[in-house]
Amino acid sequence: MKLLVSVPASIANLGSGFDTFGLAIDLRNEVEIEYAQELSVTEEGVKIEGEDLFLKTFKEVMESNGIDWGYKIKKISMIPPKKGLGSSAASIILGIAAALEINKKFSRQKIFEMATQIEGHPDNVAAAVFGGFTVSAHLKTGYNAVSMEPMCKEITILIPPFSTSTHEARKILPQTVPLEDAVFNLQRAAMVLANLRDKRMLQEFFEDKLHQDLRLSLHPELKAFFEKTKSKVEDPIFLCGSGTAIAIMGTHEIEVPHGWEVLHKKTSIEGIIVRYV
Amino acid sequence: MKLLVSVPASIANLGSGFDTFGLAIDLRNEVEIEYAQELSVTEEGVKIEGEDLFLKTFKEVMESNGIDWGYKIKKISMIPPKKGLGSSAASIILGIAAALEINKKFSRQKIFEMATQIEGHPDNVAAAVFGGFTVSAHLKTGYNAVSMEPMCKEITILIPPFSTSTHEARKILPQTVPLEDAVFNLQRAAMVLANLRDKRMLQEFFEDKLHQDLRLSLHPELKAFFEKTKSKVEDPIFLCGSGTAIAIMGTHEIEVPHGWEVLHKKTSIEGIIVRYV
Repeated sequence: MKLLVSVPASIANLGSGFDTFGLAIDLRNEVEIEYAQELSVTEEGVKIEGEDLFLKTFKEVMESNGIDWGYKIKKISMIPPKKGLGSSAASIILGIAAALEINKKFSRQKIFEMATQIEGHPDNVAAAVFGGFTVSAHLKTGYNAVSMEPMCKEITILIPPFSTSTHEARKILPQTVPLEDAVFNLQRAAMVLANLRDKRMLQEFFEDKLHQDLRLSLHPELKAFFEKTKSKVEDPIFLCGSGTAIAIMGTHEIEVPHGWEVLHKKTSIEGIIVRYV
Repeated sequence: MKLLVSVPASIANLGSGFDTFGLAIDLRNEVEIEYAQELSVTEEGVKIEGEDLFLKTFKEVMESNGIDWGYKIKKISMIPPKKGLGSSAASIILGIAAALEINKKFSRQKIFEMATQIEGHPDNVAAAVFGGFTVSAHLKTGYNAVSMEPMCKEITILIPPFSTSTHEARKILPQTVPLEDAVFNLQRAAMVLANLRDKRMLQEFFEDKLHQDLRLSLHPELKAFFEKTKSKVEDPIFLCGSGTAIAIMGTHEIEVPHGWEVLHKKTSIEGIIVRYV
């Protein structure tokens, strides 16, 4: 019997909801795990460079539970890394979720808390763990997340060949902002939530003055493309997390520069999926 | 036949929802209007000093519609003025609503737009016109408001004998704020909205770092009383608009300093009410 764990891609921020909103996308990183004499890992899908966050987290949680058996693991990674689509959050969550499930300790709330602590912020983690459209906050009592039905069923994701490091994207933000810009985002994010039941989503509700423009400006061609595309579509458009992917709600046929990729995806009401086959 | 128009008090901001949230309270300013040979105005209820905003607005809208008949008007004002309970918004809305009704042009959206233009901000106006708990925003296409069912049925309002001028309360705010304070409010305001269906309202969701503390500090005894009361109750507590009244969700028996007033009120799902008797 194999354990299958699947975690969705996620988009953080959605423009106005800086450090608050998350949206799960039906594009998944998965693992298949079988008991074995020794540890072996095979990989399929997109190539992820650097440290294997899934394996690191999986091992840590397994070891903290005192279990050191072997496993035959197959990783299938479909989320493009370093584009703002929650690839690292998904890998971390996969590792925690698989290890907790094996130890019969699976709990979404626990996974949310553990993954947020590793990631440092809850917005991607909330969407990837609970699915749907999420609001998350750093409260005194810890991180808190609410999952709701997404405001759109389909989403178009435009992925440039270049990346922004999360560190660089955070460093570029100013320490202080005009009070009126704080109110600008607050009013728009509140409008997104207030209109969620009717799913009447104006492009303007997703506009931002706190982070997006500075992050787009890290790649002048990204900023130019974003602005041109925004003026052509009526639907909400925003940078995915700190970039570099751009998302547009709904299905759109967009002509992209050479080397870019266009994905037509559904949003996901499901977060982590655990199955046995 | 008399025309009766009634407009509720309203609380703006509610802590985290600075310049965005509004809540209608079942405490009303009303007018009774009959046709007459000449204009006459009688007043009941609380004394409102300074310009009669109802009469000024009523006359302006009547004149812009080319009607100059006389009216016998009885004003019943129950909203304490200059305490942050939307007294001036209610008076302006009363004037517009009564004049438009007489001219068979009553429209909530029109009244919302006209009153917001006079008030300069939509938060009290939205709640007073549409009722309930409101989110409003200044969009490119104009002011926009959404009315929802309030998160609480009862509210306790503590009213000190002193006032803050709206101008002073605005002037004291800084032009720039830390980015993390902007995120603090954004996350909490989003939590209020995300938990609205379940009405699971934590005190922490209504905490603010953008305006409230500075405004409380205009009156040191107000700030001290607010902080002491906040530590004693678990329910959400916030300054009403720019002050000086303080509101606590739910019904609470609170001991107040000499000269203060305590009101136990219901929130109002109705905004403007128009009747003929």
